[in-house]
Amino acid sequence: MTRTALEIWAPDGVGEVAPGDDLGALVCGVCPDLADGDVVVITSKIVSKAEGRVVAAADREAAITAETVRVVATRARPGLPPLRIVENRLGLVMAAAGVDASNTPDGTVLLLPEDPDASARRIRAAVAAHLGVKVGVILTDTAGRAWRDGLVDLAIGCAGVVPLIDERGGHDSHGRELTVTVTAVADEIASAVELVKGKTSGRPVGVVRGLGHLVTDDDGPGARVLPRLGASDLFAEGTAEAYARGFGDGSAAR
Amino acid sequence: MTRTALEIWAPDGVGEVAPGDDLGALVCGVCPDLADGDVVVITSKIVSKAEGRVVAAADREAAITAETVRVVATRARPGLPPLRIVENRLGLVMAAAGVDASNTPDGTVLLLPEDPDASARRIRAAVAAHLGVKVGVILTDTAGRAWRDGLVDLAIGCAGVVPLIDERGGHDSHGRELTVTVTAVADEIASAVELVKGKTSGRPVGVVRGLGHLVTDDDGPGARVLPRLGASDLFAEGTAEAYARGFGDGSAAR
Repeated sequence: MTRTALEIWAPDGVGEVAPGDDLGALVCGVCPDLADGDVVVITSKIVSKAEGRVVAAADREAAITAETVRVVATRARPGLPPLRIVENRLGLVMAAAGVDASNTPDGTVLLLPEDPDASARRIRAAVAAHLGVKVGVILTDTAGRAWRDGLVDLAIGCAGVVPLIDERGGHDSHGRELTVTVTAVADEIASAVELVKGKTSGRPVGVVRGLGHLVTDDDGPGARVLPRLGASDLFAEGTAEAYARGFGDGSAAR
Repeated sequence: MTRTALEIWAPDGVGEVAPGDDLGALVCGVCPDLADGDVVVITSKIVSKAEGRVVAAADREAAITAETVRVVATRARPGLPPLRIVENRLGLVMAAAGVDASNTPDGTVLLLPEDPDASARRIRAAVAAHLGVKVGVILTDTAGRAWRDGLVDLAIGCAGVVPLIDERGGHDSHGRELTVTVTAVADEIASAVELVKGKTSGRPVGVVRGLGHLVTDDDGPGARVLPRLGASDLFAEGTAEAYARGFGDGSAAR
């Protein structure tokens, strides 16, 4: 009986990351046994820390505003500023624009990396230079979803790994053409590795072995292709916001 | 250096599934080496086939209507009936209510299992009876998402595995309480296993080894806890639909 198999692990020993740290060297240090075709999956938070993307907590609301391209929905919270779900400058629809207060030094919040695809490319190049192996690199963040409880990890940066597999033109087991199957494999990889990284375990780096068919010679398009932007999305605006806009227009139209 | 590790595999040899097939026996046949703490992940399509959830393709639109609790959004398609994104009777927000035409015999479409959590419980009990091991069982389907291109696999049924991990009350690495981290691990497991099952490979069953801490003695709440229903979701209605409703109300209010 043949098998298709993956192995996923997350090494201990990453330690605290500080501004200026060399993440390529860090990854090679905790994953010395990386091999061609492995995918290295890194929590974007440590990339933000290494890149010094830190802001005083007192400036959190202003930082969210600065990261926001478009407000998608808001929800009032007693005693707190409204929760803002926005499209940020990376095209990601996230609560608080992805500005994060957990696992950060007291009195600070972290912004997402300036350019997560570029960060992924740099780490990939460092792994190639230090260890002589061709890997894929995915940077992850944790996000909520419409219609589902609970958060999952998504790919917000990638290099050298296919983000979307387009199976259109392939055939199902009855010989009929598959018409609508584009799979977000980079997101599935991010979610898979979250299962071993966890939120509280101090393991922000994971490795997937067995997906060499998704690892490419060139860096590829990056995670930038994953967001569906603006008006092309049927849920570009929250229900309450769209209703209110319609109500205003309807009132004015009479 | 210690590791947290997962192994994920998908056996060949499942073959075509027909109405009345015993899925518990089938799973035990292709996964004879299951062990305590493994999670068995099964494409819901073969469960639908075994349960005879087949409908003539000519009745597809009527079947979608019958599975629909609430229309969330629609999109016109030239030459085809409008695409309907709906909340179905399982609480799942899905295109076409999850009624599926791929990998089905010509002239037919498949409905989702009648009660995917119950199906998962039956398969779990069969594995316990035949192999004497305590596993978790997850049934999956493939779904689109708001704001992201590409599809991912989600958990639509589960038994004996924790669907949501609530880490609120835990502490981050700086000793501060985690306030908003509820992780949808059942969905992450579904996505992880899709990476080895694929869409065209004839491998509708996968196994995850290494998540024994998520496997429970009792069957647990099932995947029913994963959907966020109705008005509690900020995206309960598509942007165009909410706008139109608001416009109508605004016009009438004057």
